[in-house]
Amino acid sequence: MPVNAIVGQSGGPTAAINATLAGVFTELKKAGIDTVYGTVNGIEGILKNKIVILDEILTTDEKIQALQTTPASFLGSCRYKLPKDFSDPSVYEQIFSFLKAHDIRYFFYIGGNDSMDTVAKLSEYARQKNYDIYVIGVPKTIDNDLAITDHTPGFGSAAKYIATSVKEIARDSDVYDLKSVTIVEIMGRHAGWLTAASALARCEDSIAPHLIYLPEIPFSYERFVADVKRVQEDHSNVIVCVSEGIKEENGTFVCESASSGLTDVFGHKCLSGTAKVLENYVRSTLGCKARGIELNVLQRAAGHLLSKTDIEESCAFGQEAVKAALRGETGKMIIGTRTASSSYKLTFSSTDIQNAANAEKTVPLEFISPERNDVTGAFIAYATPLIQGEIFPPYENGLPVHLVLKQV
Amino acid sequence: MPVNAIVGQSGGPTAAINATLAGVFTELKKAGIDTVYGTVNGIEGILKNKIVILDEILTTDEKIQALQTTPASFLGSCRYKLPKDFSDPSVYEQIFSFLKAHDIRYFFYIGGNDSMDTVAKLSEYARQKNYDIYVIGVPKTIDNDLAITDHTPGFGSAAKYIATSVKEIARDSDVYDLKSVTIVEIMGRHAGWLTAASALARCEDSIAPHLIYLPEIPFSYERFVADVKRVQEDHSNVIVCVSEGIKEENGTFVCESASSGLTDVFGHKCLSGTAKVLENYVRSTLGCKARGIELNVLQRAAGHLLSKTDIEESCAFGQEAVKAALRGETGKMIIGTRTASSSYKLTFSSTDIQNAANAEKTVPLEFISPERNDVTGAFIAYATPLIQGEIFPPYENGLPVHLVLKQV
Repeated sequence: MPVNAIVGQSGGPTAAINATLAGVFTELKKAGIDTVYGTVNGIEGILKNKIVILDEILTTDEKIQALQTTPASFLGSCRYKLPKDFSDPSVYEQIFSFLKAHDIRYFFYIGGNDSMDTVAKLSEYARQKNYDIYVIGVPKTIDNDLAITDHTPGFGSAAKYIATSVKEIARDSDVYDLKSVTIVEIMGRHAGWLTAASALARCEDSIAPHLIYLPEIPFSYERFVADVKRVQEDHSNVIVCVSEGIKEENGTFVCESASSGLTDVFGHKCLSGTAKVLENYVRSTLGCKARGIELNVLQRAAGHLLSKTDIEESCAFGQEAVKAALRGETGKMIIGTRTASSSYKLTFSSTDIQNAANAEKTVPLEFISPERNDVTGAFIAYATPLIQGEIFPPYENGLPVHLVLKQV
Repeated sequence: MPVNAIVGQSGGPTAAINATLAGVFTELKKAGIDTVYGTVNGIEGILKNKIVILDEILTTDEKIQALQTTPASFLGSCRYKLPKDFSDPSVYEQIFSFLKAHDIRYFFYIGGNDSMDTVAKLSEYARQKNYDIYVIGVPKTIDNDLAITDHTPGFGSAAKYIATSVKEIARDSDVYDLKSVTIVEIMGRHAGWLTAASALARCEDSIAPHLIYLPEIPFSYERFVADVKRVQEDHSNVIVCVSEGIKEENGTFVCESASSGLTDVFGHKCLSGTAKVLENYVRSTLGCKARGIELNVLQRAAGHLLSKTDIEESCAFGQEAVKAALRGETGKMIIGTRTASSSYKLTFSSTDIQNAANAEKTVPLEFISPERNDVTGAFIAYATPLIQGEIFPPYENGLPVHLVLKQV
């Protein structure tokens, strides 16, 4: 009887999630697993019978290489949540009858918090039913907000893109001999890890960003303007990095403050972003040139600018998941732990999925400056190793090559 | 008596303008020019006595290499316009007395339309006064809207960044199994060259963008929605690229249509972008997921993603400027002409500055599809050679290294 495996991706895409997929696939083949299936759009693929055979797709080293540097989820994603109640087992039975019919013993799910919930439920159901099926979760999220693991695969590449872009934006803002304030809006509704990573832009040729506001700290327009004025005493062109999720003490998101009740000429509700709100605020209160920049989805999709450390680790997370499953583990998530030594090194292990699911990790106070408008040296020491090294995708006719299931 | 030269940069920054500066400098040194000065913030540097000696900065090949891949204007920029009237010569005499005092025989100015106006005036003044000073302009602009030259240095790298980013955005938009419309806003107030370049994203793994709207064609909300609906019949995730400068038949910019009369909770005028307006419009009229993305200043400042063709040509433009000046030419701008052969090749020459200054080149109708929502194969054939090849900046500690006059 063949021994097969299946792998799926779930949650928001990242630039490194396919490196994990490559790690899972190559390690499974190394272990002699017969067929490796992929479920398209996460767990929905099994329910809707959208399955691919990865062995037929990843036929050469070149294709596996291209997969590693292809951004977004190669197998597609979903936000589907499995039913809580095992007593109505129709969905679960559909999934497990598929797995058994295909001789699948190992199930790998690459995703964030919600995806770990899927891993928890599937592994528990298999355990209760005594199915010989092993379910392992592999974390990914640019947001770095998963508990227990030192950091998440995907964060390093997003951090590198953000730091590089902020450095380039600072350079661009500085060419004219006049005062300006540039506000860069960075992803992270509840956790400020990515916004904090903008501080990595600082180096020999750059001291920007000058101010950093995280969602962990209540935002005050008054303090913000006072901060900008103080920076302007020394710097003509002020670079401010803000999380999309900053909100005032009373709980109002900054991005909502300008849009309530506004409609455009067509009568549509006018939605604005955090950077745009602050741009307008600076222009009105300080009277200087102001520009809001949203880094937007490129911070998670820029496959053209990857952290080598992140891509290699993302691949290793996938390999470790396979090793854990082959050891007979189930209902576990792979985590990375930083060894306490002078040079950076990550070691891998697994943790019970219950420890990981639904726990959100925000930026701790020791990483936030006492003035609450910057990060500390401790954060820089934490994050710097994660953006080291570069991996570039293959290029063809001037463009990066992506490995895809279909054209978009 | 020494023979010296000076060089300045003006207008909006690009990712390739410093490659031209490197070309000017290296060619001048090759020709045995004694001292090469740089004027900081364009012509304003001479008027405000902000001058650097490039020989003291560009001391190694490594530094010249780093300069070539540093985005934005190394010497800073300005928007200063010289007085029209020679009969009030105080500004002109200040400039030329500086040049003579420093034994400067050659003056190079790298910039766009306005900068060529400066070249025209300075060369004409020198001619009238019989000064032995030669003034040459070197074009740069991501907008590609300068007349006569086949294209402008800086356009190719911006086009490559845009095509790559649009491809990555398309990949990101496609991971979920649901309908979405993504609107990507690209620079170009009057000329649609950069927005047209988004079509270069199409390749074996991508057919996005599905719709392209240029400022050369009046925009119609009705046609736009009909176009999107038609594309949605075949594609769940529609990618639309629009120029920031699209406007309706009646002359109203789309980006203005939503902001007139709107104020935020602080009573400030609410300004929005073209993509945001169309995002809200799609959400309201079609009811599907919609997202507006502004590529913003990174499309001109992304030194981490450069076209090798563009950087090499930008450098060559600078070298050709030096050759022209040494031949005794003045009041000229360097242009590139594509030789009519099967493979792409650019040859350089100079043209009278009057032909170049203040003439704007928009996208011709032969490059725009009959349906007016796309570009033609002729445009693809024109633009494809300009994004070929990659040059990456040096990296240090995870970040691209920039050569700078001062930290920002």
